[in-house]
Amino acid sequence: MSLHRVITDDHRFSRTGFAEAIYSPGKRPEEIAAIGHRLDQARSAAGEDLDWPILATRVAHDDLPAIKAAWKKLSPNGALAWDADASMLELAVPGARRPIGISAVVSAGTTDREPAAEAACVLSTYGSDVARLDDVGVAGIHRLLDPTRLETLRAARVVIVVAGMEGALPSVVAGLVSAPVIAVPSPVGYGVSAGGHAALHAMLASCAPGLAVVYIGNGFGAAALAVKILRGLR
Amino acid sequence: MSLHRVITDDHRFSRTGFAEAIYSPGKRPEEIAAIGHRLDQARSAAGEDLDWPILATRVAHDDLPAIKAAWKKLSPNGALAWDADASMLELAVPGARRPIGISAVVSAGTTDREPAAEAACVLSTYGSDVARLDDVGVAGIHRLLDPTRLETLRAARVVIVVAGMEGALPSVVAGLVSAPVIAVPSPVGYGVSAGGHAALHAMLASCAPGLAVVYIGNGFGAAALAVKILRGLR
Amino acid sequence: MSLHRVITDDHRFSRTGFAEAIYSPGKRPEEIAAIGHRLDQARSAAGEDLDWPILATRVAHDDLPAIKAAWKKLSPNGALAWDADASMLELAVPGARRPIGISAVVSAGTTDREPAAEAACVLSTYGSDVARLDDVGVAGIHRLLDPTRLETLRAARVVIVVAGMEGALPSVVAGLVSAPVIAVPSPVGYGVSAGGHAALHAMLASCAPGLAVVYIGNGFGAAALAVKILRGLR
Amino acid sequence: MSLHRVITDDHRFSRTGFAEAIYSPGKRPEEIAAIGHRLDQARSAAGEDLDWPILATRVAHDDLPAIKAAWKKLSPNGALAWDADASMLELAVPGARRPIGISAVVSAGTTDREPAAEAACVLSTYGSDVARLDDVGVAGIHRLLDPTRLETLRAARVVIVVAGMEGALPSVVAGLVSAPVIAVPSPVGYGVSAGGHAALHAMLASCAPGLAVVYIGNGFGAAALAVKILRGLR
Amino acid sequence: MSLHRVITDDHRFSRTGFAEAIYSPGKRPEEIAAIGHRLDQARSAAGEDLDWPILATRVAHDDLPAIKAAWKKLSPNGALAWDADASMLELAVPGARRPIGISAVVSAGTTDREPAAEAACVLSTYGSDVARLDDVGVAGIHRLLDPTRLETLRAARVVIVVAGMEGALPSVVAGLVSAPVIAVPSPVGYGVSAGGHAALHAMLASCAPGLAVVYIGNGFGAAALAVKILRGLR
Amino acid sequence: MSLHRVITDDHRFSRTGFAEAIYSPGKRPEEIAAIGHRLDQARSAAGEDLDWPILATRVAHDDLPAIKAAWKKLSPNGALAWDADASMLELAVPGARRPIGISAVVSAGTTDREPAAEAACVLSTYGSDVARLDDVGVAGIHRLLDPTRLETLRAARVVIVVAGMEGALPSVVAGLVSAPVIAVPSPVGYGVSAGGHAALHAMLASCAPGLAVVYIGNGFGAAALAVKILRGLR
Amino acid sequence: MSLHRVITDDHRFSRTGFAEAIYSPGKRPEEIAAIGHRLDQARSAAGEDLDWPILATRVAHDDLPAIKAAWKKLSPNGALAWDADASMLELAVPGARRPIGISAVVSAGTTDREPAAEAACVLSTYGSDVARLDDVGVAGIHRLLDPTRLETLRAARVVIVVAGMEGALPSVVAGLVSAPVIAVPSPVGYGVSAGGHAALHAMLASCAPGLAVVYIGNGFGAAALAVKILRGLR
Amino acid sequence: MSLHRVITDDHRFSRTGFAEAIYSPGKRPEEIAAIGHRLDQARSAAGEDLDWPILATRVAHDDLPAIKAAWKKLSPNGALAWDADASMLELAVPGARRPIGISAVVSAGTTDREPAAEAACVLSTYGSDVARLDDVGVAGIHRLLDPTRLETLRAARVVIVVAGMEGALPSVVAGLVSAPVIAVPSPVGYGVSAGGHAALHAMLASCAPGLAVVYIGNGFGAAALAVKILRGLR
Repeated sequence: MSLHRVITDDHRFSRTGFAEAIYSPGKRPEEIAAIGHRLDQARSAAGEDLDWPILATRVAHDDLPAIKAAWKKLSPNGALAWDADASMLELAVPGARRPIGISAVVSAGTTDREPAAEAACVLSTYGSDVARLDDVGVAGIHRLLDPTRLETLRAARVVIVVAGMEGALPSVVAGLVSAPVIAVPSPVGYGVSAGGHAALHAMLASCAPGLAVVYIGNGFGAAALAVKILRGLR
Repeated sequence: MSLHRVITDDHRFSRTGFAEAIYSPGKRPEEIAAIGHRLDQARSAAGEDLDWPILATRVAHDDLPAIKAAWKKLSPNGALAWDADASMLELAVPGARRPIGISAVVSAGTTDREPAAEAACVLSTYGSDVARLDDVGVAGIHRLLDPTRLETLRAARVVIVVAGMEGALPSVVAGLVSAPVIAVPSPVGYGVSAGGHAALHAMLASCAPGLAVVYIGNGFGAAALAVKILRGLR
Repeated sequence: MSLHRVITDDHRFSRTGFAEAIYSPGKRPEEIAAIGHRLDQARSAAGEDLDWPILATRVAHDDLPAIKAAWKKLSPNGALAWDADASMLELAVPGARRPIGISAVVSAGTTDREPAAEAACVLSTYGSDVARLDDVGVAGIHRLLDPTRLETLRAARVVIVVAGMEGALPSVVAGLVSAPVIAVPSPVGYGVSAGGHAALHAMLASCAPGLAVVYIGNGFGAAALAVKILRGLR
Repeated sequence: MSLHRVITDDHRFSRTGFAEAIYSPGKRPEEIAAIGHRLDQARSAAGEDLDWPILATRVAHDDLPAIKAAWKKLSPNGALAWDADASMLELAVPGARRPIGISAVVSAGTTDREPAAEAACVLSTYGSDVARLDDVGVAGIHRLLDPTRLETLRAARVVIVVAGMEGALPSVVAGLVSAPVIAVPSPVGYGVSAGGHAALHAMLASCAPGLAVVYIGNGFGAAALAVKILRGLR
Repeated sequence: MSLHRVITDDHRFSRTGFAEAIYSPGKRPEEIAAIGHRLDQARSAAGEDLDWPILATRVAHDDLPAIKAAWKKLSPNGALAWDADASMLELAVPGARRPIGISAVVSAGTTDREPAAEAACVLSTYGSDVARLDDVGVAGIHRLLDPTRLETLRAARVVIVVAGMEGALPSVVAGLVSAPVIAVPSPVGYGVSAGGHAALHAMLASCAPGLAVVYIGNGFGAAALAVKILRGLR
Repeated sequence: MSLHRVITDDHRFSRTGFAEAIYSPGKRPEEIAAIGHRLDQARSAAGEDLDWPILATRVAHDDLPAIKAAWKKLSPNGALAWDADASMLELAVPGARRPIGISAVVSAGTTDREPAAEAACVLSTYGSDVARLDDVGVAGIHRLLDPTRLETLRAARVVIVVAGMEGALPSVVAGLVSAPVIAVPSPVGYGVSAGGHAALHAMLASCAPGLAVVYIGNGFGAAALAVKILRGLR
Repeated sequence: MSLHRVITDDHRFSRTGFAEAIYSPGKRPEEIAAIGHRLDQARSAAGEDLDWPILATRVAHDDLPAIKAAWKKLSPNGALAWDADASMLELAVPGARRPIGISAVVSAGTTDREPAAEAACVLSTYGSDVARLDDVGVAGIHRLLDPTRLETLRAARVVIVVAGMEGALPSVVAGLVSAPVIAVPSPVGYGVSAGGHAALHAMLASCAPGLAVVYIGNGFGAAALAVKILRGLR
Repeated sequence: MSLHRVITDDHRFSRTGFAEAIYSPGKRPEEIAAIGHRLDQARSAAGEDLDWPILATRVAHDDLPAIKAAWKKLSPNGALAWDADASMLELAVPGARRPIGISAVVSAGTTDREPAAEAACVLSTYGSDVARLDDVGVAGIHRLLDPTRLETLRAARVVIVVAGMEGALPSVVAGLVSAPVIAVPSPVGYGVSAGGHAALHAMLASCAPGLAVVYIGNGFGAAALAVKILRGLR
């Protein structure tokens, strides 16, 4: 197959407050490095290098060495950072970031950790200080209501809640905090919860007013909205 | 249309522990009274009159006078009892009942009250002492966790939980008590929760092990199972 | 039917930043007035009367006189405000409000106006200055790209976009502004777009990162999130 | 990937009457052994070791040797029991169990045996004496109505019925016994019955009052409810 | 609206063994009479008047007088026969019919009677001797297994089984007889069984080989197939 | 896994007119041979060996040698017949068969051949003389209307039509012949027709009265019904 | 409710070759007349009055007198034309039209006539000479294959086919002509065909290459595409 | 498996304006070559060799050498052309083609390229001059509205638009051009857009009148319709 020329949307950050990222599945290591390099040049040209990260999402762990090698050739001095839980690679990591406020990422169980990690990684690379609360699902509600955990939760200025199975956690959280809450249905699971549709519909049907939902597994999208909210706060 | 001869299943109580009831929609007042009369005779013949109630479910309020009149003719001394919240009519009410243990019926919000009332009414006519906990939905979780309410809940030997919208309440309750919990999705609501499918799927996907589900709005069926469980306890 | 005692969640505003509202369908005029009166008392007790409005949503126009009469008895001096497009009634209107920032409500066509009006009314009663852009659907994209309209849109600190049919407008808007965008699928329409599911799925599948979605027709919920975002900005 | 610290819910048994189990898919052999060891310590601390088993469910047969090796290191004297039909491993098997009453597990055909085995194994490890009736599907109804089988069925104090295809068997069984009946749709099959949705919906629509349903293939959940019911009987 | 000229398929009986019928909904009384008259003429021309009935299906009871009046004008000597349970009207009833063999129509409960009546009426007008077995649903399986009923069932050369709710009856019947069995899902009901989809899918998933299914409520279609089968037997 | 004892339904043929077959997926070669041997003994005991074949369906081609070897041991003189297109194996083939009448199996395109072959093979082993008409899909309707083909079609006493994609062929065929027509939706295909649901729904919605449908890909079930119809004709 | 100012898209015809029409449901008679008047002025300004009609679609018959009266006031000399079968009203009918080529509108049965009439009416007002072929459904395929009808069909330069039930007719037609074929699923019907989804999916799955589909009942949209195709031919 | 004789529809081009193509999946290399050879002979016999190409679609790249070898034997002088992006092979390429007008194929993003390539390849082999516009999705609407791109788009006489995710692009394009627009939902993607159903429904619900849709991923079918439209223009 011939190599397609990918047209990057270089001005997306200045236009929308959230920069173009590289969705890795289906792209070869050299393509990922090349698009990253081009975004790095666009960012430098715009003089905004502290504010937006250059991210490759859902990177296959096996592709890492090849991407690093290709990146080295294109940008010998550009730092790389790999987040294994989020399967996310940051290219051309800046020396410092401008902070954009505290956020929290809450998850119900083991199967929710991947979208949670993805959301936390994006928030962190955009300059947010991220608090993580894991394994606080509603079948043992005392875990969430622990005073220390509640205090952490209430300190955040935006909250992302990832849950699979019956998807009840975001409704409970939204009844406890005043920050905006973004719900992410978790795709991983078994039985009826596999695929995440039960959780998606439960979240859309939430009895807690003002809960907004992104699609199943879309920790990246939830974080994009959270970043926009946090940046508006400055 | 000619009058169909309805074949009642007179021995269902002795066979299954739960008697045949009269589903009223589509039946005329005289038919309801006539079937009730026939069941009354079958019950007397079996000598079990304390143990099983003769119930007409989902009775239209406007049909009450006509049913009462028809019943009066067939059974001049047979007492009647009407539960307006449950739209349920008990025919040939016995003077006393054999008690079968404490149950609890929990509901999340206003729209869940009809199935909750139906379940409570059935349990009560079968001899259970029923505790009601209403308006304890998960968006204000402190209401359920109130110590007095928790104590009431934990005293029950079987618990029915009715919830619409995101259907999260049964999962939370099942994480708090050791009694069997039966979940009833609520059919009434608006938006995505209208129809009760989001709640049904959330309940089937519950993270709380051992939660059994009946179909949307089926407070009657949930109570039937609860009665069988309570009767087994004796 | 006996009159149910409704348990209001009086501290929801201080806990979650968005107060309990009265969902009117299924409630009688006197009930609406009575719940409103109780919320008014709770608000006074909390000393927050400028910050949260007391709203009855989806009020039937025919019920207005009876609600007003009942309200007059309970609160002789309490002002009322009726928004016919939003079918929303504000009870105990305060003399002044604390402003919470500029928002925009965008809609694609005639059938999207009801959720748009509901969202705008909520935002306005919570103190936001709301800009409306109607009839800017994607089949005539020049209408949205008009420079005056774009400037208005970009001045908003949060944007709600209502669309039915193919639900494409939120994706286009989210590609044009840096404020957070909340998408509301419109329930009214004909053919495949009737019911709003095509729009809902299109919005969940949007190519614009960070678009969060509320359920079909839920202008109220979208505004609740927008209020929380704007209040965080202060 | 870094090793996640799994937070076990050590007090679930005392709170809910059914202990936390280890869902094995996605966990490594050493993790399964480690979680089991932790639960064993929690059980010992609670002094309840006869009453709740430590179970690893859906264990891959190929992982057995590695789990056993890891377990040996952590708990040199802890007995293990493997149920190949149920793919379930019991860790730290106690020397004796307190019996909790007779149960029956009924299945329709060959493809229903896996959920049936899972349910029977859980019931058995919790102390129930389990009667199995297999291959009694409704297309040859005489098999179920055989007097010896009927007598066995009626001796049980709780009945679990697993069926795939048209899912009719639970309705027939519930018309024959007075014990509570829990229905499990079978996921294995071919054609329209593959996936188990036809059976799930048939069971939810059952003409037999009081039939409660768990999700497709969830023999574990059905047994959890059965255990709670049986424990309530004591 | 102008009067559309309806093109009848006059030779359908000789071509396919089952004649065109008049589906009444949406047609005016005079149209029904006129189409019937035209079919009567076609039948006479073909010299087949004993073999195929002229049927108007799903006739509104209120339209009967007007249809009779219109028919009287067109065909002063043509006899009419009305089946109230089936809502079916036969026009130009012949003096005698050629018999085509015994059939049975079995139904599970009260809500299945309309499709059962429709099927029985069609079979009867085509010359079959129809045995009816009603109220033999699977929750009381002893009713179907009654020796007299079984003998009746086994005398039929084709069997139609109508069932709603879980749709299990056809599978049980098909395991008891050697005649071809045609299953009709019942549309009437409540809860999950309303609409008949659970029954339809259960029937398509039947464990009994050789069960063919027609669409929900289509008693007419089931009878059409049964007639073709019976006519092939002669 | 331990070897399950499979309970065969040995008297199904005398009871229902269609014998038990061996569904091969999930069974080991030796199990297939053993069940076949048991059925052979049952058939001999019943003295019906000409009338019912012993069939193993959906046999993996790779398992053939092992099945043959196992069979040889159990039944040194029993003949075997393999139909590669139908993936069906007949065990203990009788020397002669009693004929049961002519049938036709019609298919629309290449992807419909597997269910068509399965249906034809079953019909043939039960003694029917089967006419095949392939590649006569409706996009080239002249192929079906060819006079020779029409004559063949009209000679059959029962017709099975297999079609995928839009599933239109059975409706056209049912408008051309007087024999009963059984429709089989084809599972193989691409795009919207993959899976066969479009064809299934089209067949259930057919404008041709009396078309009965079996589930997607169920050529075996269609043939079972056809056999019952043909056997009734004798 | 206040009167909304509707923003018409006056230049749609010059931009897209098909003018804005007035979708009447939800609009008051005076609004329909006022929008029509505004479009008339826009058309005059553009000097294109022969080429694009001003259409109000899905007009309620009862609203006709009021629309006519309102129109009379706004445009005393503007002619009106009413098509009762299509429920369509043309406003400001021009004296002459420029012809755009022959089209055909084919329908399967009685229930398909409304979308067929809508499509034919639009085509006709845009200047196409429309041939109608009704009642040519596939259960009597000889009707479509009649030589005179085939000749008419093949004379058309674009063909619209409306069908409900199994939706097979467009596939058959597309196999007979070389003109582009546009398929319209019919929404009216009963049983599985009610709603038109079976027909929609059958059409999308058609075995005839190049069949394009519009949504259920959308005769207007099919005609819009046909007009664009015909106008391209000039 | 025995080799099936495939019946080609040799006269489809003269009858329908679009020739039979070879759908490759499931066919062996020699079968593809053999069918191609037969079509080549049919085309030669018809004397139309410039007008219709002989196409094998969805060819596996790995099968290419074997197909070429088989073709060489059958047709030593017949040229072959391979389009890797479209996975399409043209057999017996003619020396020259008769041009049929300009078309445009528009796509939204990377994942839409396969159907776009398939459509473009078919159009090109039938003689159309095809303009490609890629990566012009609605989240960066300025890319489509670029004056050079708009001019290219408006020069086309038929436009195919491929889009996944929210499927909004065809609606926007149809509001910009007067040529007929055919929409193709893209099957490739992730999250809710995976599978293409969100895009399919969005396209069927489009607010742009006259947008016709083919099934998900069916670039071939879209091109078939486009070819028929372009050929009608000559």
